[in-house]
Amino acid sequence: MRLSTRNQLKGTVSAISEGVTNTEVIISLPGGTQIVSVVTKGAVKTLELEVGKTAYALIKSSNVIIGINIQKISARNVLTGKVSSIIEGSVNDEVSIDLGRGYTITAVITKSSVASLGLEVGVVASAIIKASAVILAVD
Amino acid sequence: MRLSTRNQLKGTVSAISEGVTNTEVIISLPGGTQIVSVVTKGAVKTLELEVGKTAYALIKSSNVIIGINIQKISARNVLTGKVSSIIEGSVNDEVSIDLGRGYTITAVITKSSVASLGLEVGVVASAIIKASAVILAVD
Amino acid sequence: MRLSTRNQLKGTVSAISEGVTNTEVIISLPGGTQIVSVVTKGAVKTLELEVGKTAYALIKSSNVIIGINIQKISARNVLTGKVSSIIEGSVNDEVSIDLGRGYTITAVITKSSVASLGLEVGVVASAIIKASAVILAVD
Repeated sequence: MRLSTRNQLKGTVSAISEGVTNTEVIISLPGGTQIVSVVTKGAVKTLELEVGKTAYALIKSSNVIIGINIQKISARNVLTGKVSSIIEGSVNDEVSIDLGRGYTITAVITKSSVASLGLEVGVVASAIIKASAVILAVD
Repeated sequence: MRLSTRNQLKGTVSAISEGVTNTEVIISLPGGTQIVSVVTKGAVKTLELEVGKTAYALIKSSNVIIGINIQKISARNVLTGKVSSIIEGSVNDEVSIDLGRGYTITAVITKSSVASLGLEVGVVASAIIKASAVILAVD
Repeated sequence: MRLSTRNQLKGTVSAISEGVTNTEVIISLPGGTQIVSVVTKGAVKTLELEVGKTAYALIKSSNVIIGINIQKISARNVLTGKVSSIIEGSVNDEVSIDLGRGYTITAVITKSSVASLGLEVGVVASAIIKASAVILAVD
């Protein structure tokens, strides 16, 4: 299985909280970082998700927001690191953040946001991702 | 009503499963393909959705992921076909997949994903869409 | 706290409807416009959201759809104004809509949608945003 999502983080299911239509699933990465996802109840069944199972958190780069000095925000995933590369486009730029331990998150954001945030390689920044933007996959 | 969403699939509501805040609505396309959407409960009321009603599943191209040999994934919509066109940009490319029966799905994904997946016209690939990324409209 | 999201609308929490995993939160802007968001229950707690509190509705430009003559659509947020600028890219264009009272919404949509909708400065158009695409922040 190969996917276009730039961000594919391998971890272990560490918690499952069932709702009526949606279920919150937490994926723990080596090192303790947690990725919160909200998927449909049907998906939990199809993927046979259960605590301890290996799973991938897939995040499309267009769903990643970049922030600096993030405090109170509803998005459940705020992953902080250093900008490791910026690839320039005409309307959008592609910004990667090195989270350490070999993890990188890539975001596609508008050029004007790159400018207004003063993003450049080495700047400390956070990748912000809504739980509903995370897709889960299993082998 | 005219919309910027590149993907506007006309079908029939075939199932509605109510939750507390969200409701899962399935749109069946001619030929049997099903599109699963999750919308707010308020939207079901506003649109007067009910089984048998004609509705459009609207999917923004930036919310479409492309995959190859897709197996176990939480996204409820996996639509497989052949790449019919690739329009190149600077950071993003626009990739269309012909699903047959006149249906095409367009995705905007990063150039590096197009390269790493080896996408080119004629390659068999899947358009992957989270149920929460599908918007519904009625006439 | 600084963010890459192009759309950051400051308002007041006017309603909170709790679900099992998700909660619907309405932000009222000065002038009466309402932004509907769906966030996880955990986020409501973390942000200590309550009616009357000042909050920001954050919307990534890639999650904004542009429509003309919008009627029945499941997306809870339909904000109508006039196109105030179009910045051209290679695959995507950046389109801003002036909502009046100093509010502007920016969308990134494909060039072909800009063409097919006939968008140009001055055209009346709506920014359409799913409740699940809105992120909330507080100071």
